[in-house]
Parts: sequence; C-alpha cells; structure tokens
Amino acid sequence: MLHDPARAFMPYPEVPVPHAPSGPLAGLRFGVKDLFDVAGLPTSGGQPFMLAMSGVKTRTAPTVQRLLDAGAAFAGKTVTDELAFSMNGSNAHFGAPVNGAAPDRISGGSSSGSAAAVSHGLVDFALGTDTGGSVRAPASHCGLVGLRPTHGRVSLEGALDLAPSLDTCGWFTRDVPLFARVADVLLGDDARPLPSRIRLLRPTDVWGLLAPEVAEALAPVAAQAEALFGAAAPVEAAFESFDAMYWHFRHIQGREAWMTDGDFIRRFAPPLGPGVAERFAWSSRVGDDQVAAAAAFRVRFRAHLAALLGDDGVLLMPTMPDVAPLRSDTEAALEDYRNAAIRMLCLSGLSGFPQLSLPFASRLGAPLGIGLLAPPGRDRSLVALAERWAAARAG
Amino acid sequence: MLHDPARAFMPYPEVPVPHAPSGPLAGLRFGVKDLFDVAGLPTSGGQPFMLAMSGVKTRTAPTVQRLLDAGAAFAGKTVTDELAFSMNGSNAHFGAPVNGAAPDRISGGSSSGSAAAVSHGLVDFALGTDTGGSVRAPASHCGLVGLRPTHGRVSLEGALDLAPSLDTCGWFTRDVPLFARVADVLLGDDARPLPSRIRLLRPTDVWGLLAPEVAEALAPVAAQAEALFGAAAPVEAAFESFDAMYWHFRHIQGREAWMTDGDFIRRFAPPLGPGVAERFAWSSRVGDDQVAAAAAFRVRFRAHLAALLGDDGVLLMPTMPDVAPLRSDTEAALEDYRNAAIRMLCLSGLSGFPQLSLPFASRLGAPLGIGLLAPPGRDRSLVALAERWAAARAG
Repeated sequence: MLHDPARAFMPYPEVPVPHAPSGPLAGLRFGVKDLFDVAGLPTSGGQPFMLAMSGVKTRTAPTVQRLLDAGAAFAGKTVTDELAFSMNGSNAHFGAPVNGAAPDRISGGSSSGSAAAVSHGLVDFALGTDTGGSVRAPASHCGLVGLRPTHGRVSLEGALDLAPSLDTCGWFTRDVPLFARVADVLLGDDARPLPSRIRLLRPTDVWGLLAPEVAEALAPVAAQAEALFGAAAPVEAAFESFDAMYWHFRHIQGREAWMTDGDFIRRFAPPLGPGVAERFAWSSRVGDDQVAAAAAFRVRFRAHLAALLGDDGVLLMPTMPDVAPLRSDTEAALEDYRNAAIRMLCLSGLSGFPQLSLPFASRLGAPLGIGLLAPPGRDRSLVALAERWAAARAG
Repeated sequence: MLHDPARAFMPYPEVPVPHAPSGPLAGLRFGVKDLFDVAGLPTSGGQPFMLAMSGVKTRTAPTVQRLLDAGAAFAGKTVTDELAFSMNGSNAHFGAPVNGAAPDRISGGSSSGSAAAVSHGLVDFALGTDTGGSVRAPASHCGLVGLRPTHGRVSLEGALDLAPSLDTCGWFTRDVPLFARVADVLLGDDARPLPSRIRLLRPTDVWGLLAPEVAEALAPVAAQAEALFGAAAPVEAAFESFDAMYWHFRHIQGREAWMTDGDFIRRFAPPLGPGVAERFAWSSRVGDDQVAAAAAFRVRFRAHLAALLGDDGVLLMPTMPDVAPLRSDTEAALEDYRNAAIRMLCLSGLSGFPQLSLPFASRLGAPLGIGLLAPPGRDRSLVALAERWAAARAG
C-alpha cells in the first residue's frame, strides 16, 4: 500500500514549520514544489546529487513564509521533475506523481507533485514554478486553476533557478474562489488593474495550432467567455512565426538552464533522467549568436504583444495543444507533444506577461485548460476575470 | 572537470567529524560506504527516497567511531550500489564509481565507492559491507585487499541492512601491511587463532569453475602460497552442487532483502535502477518452503565446511570467476557474470566463515584476486597469513 497514492510528496522527515494562528489563509494546507527552501528540510530540485549537497536549509523562502504568515499550514514538499527541466511529470529518481483527474495520463510538469497533490485533494493549494509551462501545463492536464504570473511579480528568492529571465512562481487550486484568496496574499492589488470592460481578443494563429477536435472541445467554453466579456476580436499574437518563437524561447531557456546547472552537471556528471539529460546536452551547445538573436527577438516580441494588448486587451486562448498524453506514451511522443506545447506556451514565457489556465473544458474524459493572457502587472485583474467567469458558469 | 574523477564520494556538505589526535591509525584517512551512519550527515543507502527520508543522523555507527577513536580521519561517505543489492558498481542515481586499476572495467559492488576511493589513492582505507560479495568482488576487480569477516565479528550497528544473516562489515586497502593495521583495530585478536602451521586446501570444485585462462593466470601465485604454506591438499568444498548452493544462497538473501526493504519499496514504489528492481521483484516472490529448505541446507553446509576445515584448514581459492567485466557490457552480461560469481562467493556467504581477497594476480591488464577462506573466528589469523604471503612476495 503506497503511503501517498498520488506520489505527490517528497518523503522528508516531519519538521515543525510554524504558521500564523489566523489570517486570510487560516485553515488551508499547502504543498511546496521542492525547489523552494523550507527551514528544517533540504531542497532537492528533484535531483539526488542536489539533495545530497543541499544540507538542511535554515531559511524559508519568502513566498512560502508569506503563506505561513497568512495562516496557511505547510503540508510538505512536492516532487518536481528533475531540475525542473521537463514537462512530463515524471522523475527518474522520485517517480511520477499521479494526475488526480486522469490517472492514466501524465500530470505534466515540472510542478508535477504540486499538481498531483491538489488534484487528489491532499492539499488545498500548492506552489509551483513556471519557466516554459511548468504551472500551466499540469494545471491544464490535471483540471486545476494555475497562474503563470507576470515575470518577477511573485518572489522566487530562496528557490532553485532554472532560467531566471523566464522563471516565475505560480500556484494551483481546484477552484477559482480559493485561487483568488491565495492571489490576495501572493499578488496583492495590481498597481495598474485591467479596466472593468476588457477587450477580449482571439489569437487566431494560436487557435489554428489546435487539431479540430480540440478546438471543438474548447468552443462552448470560449463562447461563454465571449458572452461574458464581449465578442473576441481576431488577432495574430505570434511574431514572425511559431517556429521562430519556439527556437528563440528554447535558446534563451537552454542557455540560462546551462548557466544555472551546467557547472553542477560538469562537476558531478549526475545520471539524469530520460529527456532531461538530452535537453541539458542540447542546452550546453546553444551558441552566443543564437542567444543574442533570441534576446533581440524577445524585445521586439514583447513590444508587439504589448501594443496588441494595450491596457485592456486580454487573449482568450487554449493553454495546451490537447489533453495530457498517456503515461504509456513513449519518450519520443512526449517530446513531440512538448515541442508542440512550447509553441503556445512561449507567448507568455517570452513576453513575461501573465497567463491563467482554467479547468473549464475536457476531452476524452480528461481535463483541458483554457486560458487568459493579460498585459504585464494585471495578474490580480486576470484572476478577477476568472472569478466572474467561474461565477457565471456556476450561476 | 569532475570534482571527484573517481566518482567515489557522496557530495554531502562538509561537517566536522572529530577523531582522536593520536592512536594506531593516526595520519590515515578513510571513506565510509553510505550505509553507515555518521553524525551530522544523512545515510542514503544509494537510494534517493532513503536519502530524503534519512534526515541528519545524530549518532555515528560504532565501527566508524572505533576508527575515529584510533586516530583515523573521516574523509567522506562513499557511493554504494542502490540499497547494496548489486555487484555491478553502478548506481542509477549516483553514478558509477571508477575502478582505479582498470578504468574501462566495472569497480564491482556494492561497496563500489569505497573500492574506487581506495584504488584511486583518495583515502588510505575504506569501510564496505559484504552480503554476497560486496567487498570481495570490488577488491578483486580493483586490485585491493578486502576481507569478508566472520559473520558478526565486526559490528554493523548503525548501518543499513540488506540481509542481516549474511551481512558483514569489511574494508579495503591497497596493501597488506596497512590492512593488518586496520585489522588490529577492527578485529583485535582471535579468541582461537589458526595454528602456526596451517593445512592449506585446494577446493578443486571451485577451481573447476574457472575458465582455463583464468586458472592459468592464478597458477603462479597459487604456487607461491603452496611454497609458503605447504602443498595444498585437494578437497571438494561445495555441498550437493554449486547450483544448490547458488539457489539456497539467493533464497536466503532474497527473503531477507525483501524483509528489510520490501515495506519501503511497497510504500514508496521508488524507481529502482536496472537489475536492482528485478532482483527485488524476484525476492518478493521467494517462497516460505524455499526459505525453509535454504535454512536447513545452510546448517548442513556450515557443518560440512567446518568439518572440512577443522581448526587448521584454509582454502586457497579464486575470489571471482575472472577480472571485472567491461563497463560497456550489457546488463544481461553483467547478470550472467554475477550469477557465476555467486557460485564461488557463496561458500563464505552461506557458512559465515571469513574470506580474504588479495590483489596478487592479473589478467588482460586488470587485477584478479586470489583468496583464503578460514574457519570462523580466525579473521586476524587470516590477515596474518596474508602478511606472511605479501612479505614473501616482496622479499
């Protein structure tokens, strides 16, 4: 009998992690992706050598502390894909957290344990990180609400990096009202909120990436959003081409991942899991010219998307190309799926703009997320839109 | 650039591990297989979940403490094959320690990191454990002196078990004189030493397991022993058949290994490395009737071997079937080699009698151990024989 059928948690010893006796999150329990330091425990990054080197941390990451100070109780560290460099929801050393909404399908990653813990109801919410989709992908796959905030909005101090100019701190809940409660603590108010009347936009190029049956599964819920927020004007969100976006994103991510972990990998030559090893090897070969071109592209893309959205534009778009792949799929099939996913995930990644995934659709009996992408800094406003949408669905 | 080209050590944080300022082992540095507790560090058993669960130990295993009290300095924990249930010298999570005497060949295991550390000269000696050959195999493969002591002679308190009725604590050095210095500390004197004139015995059935070219490589050094200790009388050491010995050994080892680790494996379903996973799965299916038959057989075999050796008989025998397999060999080839090795290693394993491996031969440019097996409790006497033999070779 598994102690944790969700395979969500790292089996660290129990240590006291004090939290405030009252506060806006009192009574809630949360999990923390094992990239964040929690005093009294090690931080593994899902990598055995990193775990061995970690020692016991003496400080708690500020974002975790903020949740404790708001009265939430720490329930445990959750399994992360190895060094967070994967979207497969599987760790060669610490196992594959189980998708609570579709157990025969991958949970997605790298915030796999956090998504598994929330989707199984083991915790009320859980912290994750999103560099290339590591909150949005598992949120879509596991039927959860998940946000990739504006880059820099939620502190990643005291957390292991993957690619710092892309890394963000997000979280998962099963429903929107609770998501909003956590948002009040982690986001506070927007300095420049969205106006009460937004301009809903439909990036036809992104929707065009979907297979017809996936677009069909999302159509009714997209229609709900239009009924609520107004008809979505068609726009082209991508810049140059999805291939250009994909490669520039990967060059930035790869170079930064190698700057983060390359020294560790060269020093210890740790046995890395399937896919992870290949991605780091690829990352080590990204060239300076590719990085320079990607940096220049990112500036132009950000300006393009900022102009497109203005102060009131919100993209209504699918989070992922489809429901989660089956656990039985091959590593090659997962890699293909990942490469397709990056094409739509990289809009938020490259721009740094916030994107929310909402568990409002399904296909083949498995969850399928739909998302909203807003101008930078409108994170809390984005959550407020989701609150209205969820209320309309409930009503 | 690897921090540790031998890949011998676990990368734990440096912690102070005090040792006596003087003593019989002053000035020596030693490594400790990561099955033994050392205060201030975790104990992984080469398994990431075990590492995560370990926490930081507060007590040092008595055998390690004995070495510290004798003035030796702790140099670090060494990589063990996963849960010590392997002889391949490779850990899917922590890498493959490098054989310092034959880098293209496996180090052997499960005391792989200890053998690698000593064979590279990174430490003077290192602690290992031997259940089915985990000291003798890497000693033979890496050109080291290694002892499997009489079962129970050297304390395994504060160390992770594999199969308690078979587990023993041994150590490695590069030469016999230093081996004897450590023996004085860890063994002390024998209560019933071997007489000054031993009766050297040649187990022709064990020698018959060797390929002709291996027997040929060992012949000159066996002749040295005969010149020194007297002509070896031919005997049959095995009981019933090598197949019977092999299966009874494996049934005891498998049942005990499953009793030790089965609950952990059932609870956490940890991803186990190649070979290790299959062996535990096999172990879980060993039947009560097989265990009972093996226990009865062991009693009879022990009586048979005790009668054969009396108080003065010492078997002169090969440690392993051949030099270490190549690192490039397949898992299946390694499994075949392991199964052949168990046939000769299990004499000491099933009887609990001490066996010493000496690095006095080679083949194909790689080390090949030759061994002595004595009646129980004659461990220090066995080392004394090796001292005479080594001195004769030097002189």
